[in-house]
Amino acid sequence: MTDPRLSELARLLPDLKLSTDPGDLEHHGRDWTRRWTPAPLAVAFPADIAQVQAIVRWAAQTGVAIVPSGGRTGLSGGAVAAHGELVLSLDRMNKVLDFNPVDRTLTVQPGIALEAVQQAARDRGLIYPVDFAARGSCQIGGNIATNAGGIRVIRYGNTRQWVAGLKVVTGTGELLDLNKGLVKNASGYDLRHLVIGSEGTLGIVVEATLWLTAPPPDTQVMLLAIPAMDALMKVFAEANHRLRLEAFEFFTDRALAHVTAHGAQKPFAEDHPFYVVTEFDAAGEADALDFFERCVEEGWVVDGVIASSDAQAAALWRLREGITESLARYKPYKNDVSVRISVVPAFMEEMQRLLSAEYPHFDVVWFGHIGDGNLHINVLKPDDLANDTFVSQCEHVTSLLVETLHRHEGSISAEHGIGLVKKPWLGSVRSDAEITLMRGIKAAWDPRNIMNPGKLL
Amino acid sequence: MTDPRLSELARLLPDLKLSTDPGDLEHHGRDWTRRWTPAPLAVAFPADIAQVQAIVRWAAQTGVAIVPSGGRTGLSGGAVAAHGELVLSLDRMNKVLDFNPVDRTLTVQPGIALEAVQQAARDRGLIYPVDFAARGSCQIGGNIATNAGGIRVIRYGNTRQWVAGLKVVTGTGELLDLNKGLVKNASGYDLRHLVIGSEGTLGIVVEATLWLTAPPPDTQVMLLAIPAMDALMKVFAEANHRLRLEAFEFFTDRALAHVTAHGAQKPFAEDHPFYVVTEFDAAGEADALDFFERCVEEGWVVDGVIASSDAQAAALWRLREGITESLARYKPYKNDVSVRISVVPAFMEEMQRLLSAEYPHFDVVWFGHIGDGNLHINVLKPDDLANDTFVSQCEHVTSLLVETLHRHEGSISAEHGIGLVKKPWLGSVRSDAEITLMRGIKAAWDPRNIMNPGKLL
Repeated sequence: MTDPRLSELARLLPDLKLSTDPGDLEHHGRDWTRRWTPAPLAVAFPADIAQVQAIVRWAAQTGVAIVPSGGRTGLSGGAVAAHGELVLSLDRMNKVLDFNPVDRTLTVQPGIALEAVQQAARDRGLIYPVDFAARGSCQIGGNIATNAGGIRVIRYGNTRQWVAGLKVVTGTGELLDLNKGLVKNASGYDLRHLVIGSEGTLGIVVEATLWLTAPPPDTQVMLLAIPAMDALMKVFAEANHRLRLEAFEFFTDRALAHVTAHGAQKPFAEDHPFYVVTEFDAAGEADALDFFERCVEEGWVVDGVIASSDAQAAALWRLREGITESLARYKPYKNDVSVRISVVPAFMEEMQRLLSAEYPHFDVVWFGHIGDGNLHINVLKPDDLANDTFVSQCEHVTSLLVETLHRHEGSISAEHGIGLVKKPWLGSVRSDAEITLMRGIKAAWDPRNIMNPGKLL
Repeated sequence: MTDPRLSELARLLPDLKLSTDPGDLEHHGRDWTRRWTPAPLAVAFPADIAQVQAIVRWAAQTGVAIVPSGGRTGLSGGAVAAHGELVLSLDRMNKVLDFNPVDRTLTVQPGIALEAVQQAARDRGLIYPVDFAARGSCQIGGNIATNAGGIRVIRYGNTRQWVAGLKVVTGTGELLDLNKGLVKNASGYDLRHLVIGSEGTLGIVVEATLWLTAPPPDTQVMLLAIPAMDALMKVFAEANHRLRLEAFEFFTDRALAHVTAHGAQKPFAEDHPFYVVTEFDAAGEADALDFFERCVEEGWVVDGVIASSDAQAAALWRLREGITESLARYKPYKNDVSVRISVVPAFMEEMQRLLSAEYPHFDVVWFGHIGDGNLHINVLKPDDLANDTFVSQCEHVTSLLVETLHRHEGSISAEHGIGLVKKPWLGSVRSDAEITLMRGIKAAWDPRNIMNPGKLL
């Protein structure tokens, strides 16, 4: 620890695990974005809330910025440390602390993986229903900091809906104990909801009490082949009307090509432009057949398969959930946009026109949570193109996409957050007045501007 | 308009309906708490958002405080104007503006009554599920400002869960258009959730987009007679386990005595210490009989009736919903407290001991949303006691109750808000650090402190 600020921290907290190992700096200084070169001052691994508070107080005094760090599966650069920040990793604070069967709440430390939360719930006969592909690596603290969505939002909402209580350390080192698991609490501004989605810029989530719920009845998984874009939302409306949906996810032929090239089983003999994987309560099986027949009669669906075993259900889900991984080697440029559900058809048509005009030679892969109005667009980098050139071409297209989105009152970030990646376009979703208020709120929570500075705002 | 500030307002907005009529001042200067003498400067009835903005700008310039004013059915003094404020009544902004069947959203002006929102939803084959007895008088803007709860929270959550978008005029007259109806929008702090429950201290809700939902299947209504307090939560756990609950409300023998004295039909020949009215999906009728038999076998329930017609269902509901009205003539002192559900039994026992010791000669009426951990305690003023003496005796007991609540991590306000009535006890629910942050947030939204000053903070 040659840096005197670090020596001071080590002196203040002799038991704190603190690393300046180049491998640790590299590993903990970046997230799944890969656009910035990691350059943190050090990585701290506090073991408890008191250590987090002490680190924040040290940071406020020395002016060292803190990057709160979870599983770093984020796609907007929210957990990147590229400017001499202290990475505050929650990896060691990863325990289940309490379960209350009457309140149906699970209290956890922030560094626990989403999958471990889901398993802890199942072990107790309940579920924690927020779910997405990064479940094994992402941490609940990061889920809360970005109000993570995923594949079950259509039924269960975003992370926000499942947070019963939060302990948070603010930029002054104060520990807040927000809402304490109450169902009803009309006692002033709900600061819990302000922290959810704040991307580590207001404080560090150091403990969370999550609501759990009863498992759904048995479900079935169905894959549908869809011949044209304008049929997609008709199929969704029909499914939503007739079935009790758990998930309704779409992807394109290009997405399927990548995921099958990456090892997944091709589901149909023929190729089709669009696919939907949907999961619904099995009690509605007769309705599912009616739904399928209606869609085929109308020409909205041209093929389909319903999983007859858990293994087949998993194989169908892999077609959707394996996409991100299958694209990783192409360093994809990602858009994560949302519009109101009613606006999806018009928006998708305009977007498709725009993307084919602007990306004639790039491989563009779409998928997403269409029942929430949320589309993911992945533009793959050609191997022979330099990354900087590629990103700047993509950013140009994003600026055109932003205009389309703005016209349709959509958002440039549905669930990935703003971080560093989308900062240039924050003003397309939020007005100047809103951004001024956000800055004012941040100043109240983090007067020294040490909490993830440069992210989001 | 002899006051020069009002003359200036009238000059700026010649079309604004503005009243200094003593009847209007009296009527619009108070809410359902009746503890303060109304003394507003005037009452303004803006017709649109532009007028609201102009009024706020005038207020910021002249320093006149604004009390945003809806149906004034609040029970915490949040809409009282007792110090020369301008009452900004939303009475004229009471229209349905839009309905989107795909998004299932209804866009309304803030002055529309809750009941009119519910009716507008029903007219479109959907429901707006937040519901409580003041539905005919309260306005949606006030519902949002207090995050209103009511009798269906157990199934549908509080108002917060149904707000898809908000237009808000801040203390500087800026118009914010928050979230715009998006299901997913991870683009910075969710200011919508900050406004919900802020009691008019951050800004004025001038438009709301509400999510609607499908009506539930047919429901049944059941009334249960319960012999002892410790059986109440057992009955709830059993009902919650076996039935799909829409509501689970309890009240005491004293509550029943008042509501029957006020004209409702006595439900059972015998008297019992506690009653529960519950509503659940009718598809579970067989389960309902099993539930009832189990409860009787265990001795948790000693009598019961299930409504066999809509009229009978309404009559059973009246026993619960008529309580507040039946108590009104006694100028009740109200507590509205909440704890976590698991804490209810221990808390109720301590609370009962406290109340019988401290109020030996007062008529104390309990009822509430026990499945949400929310109890309403109404202390009736003896006719021969002066109001000030009565209130100060009750406040003494409240301070003891607050200690009990604090020990159980409960809240002094479950759903009524803090307003003026509960300000002395805000510090029992929220820490100094939280209150400091709230003040900082208020300063950013309302730098001149003209938005409902003195309420909440």
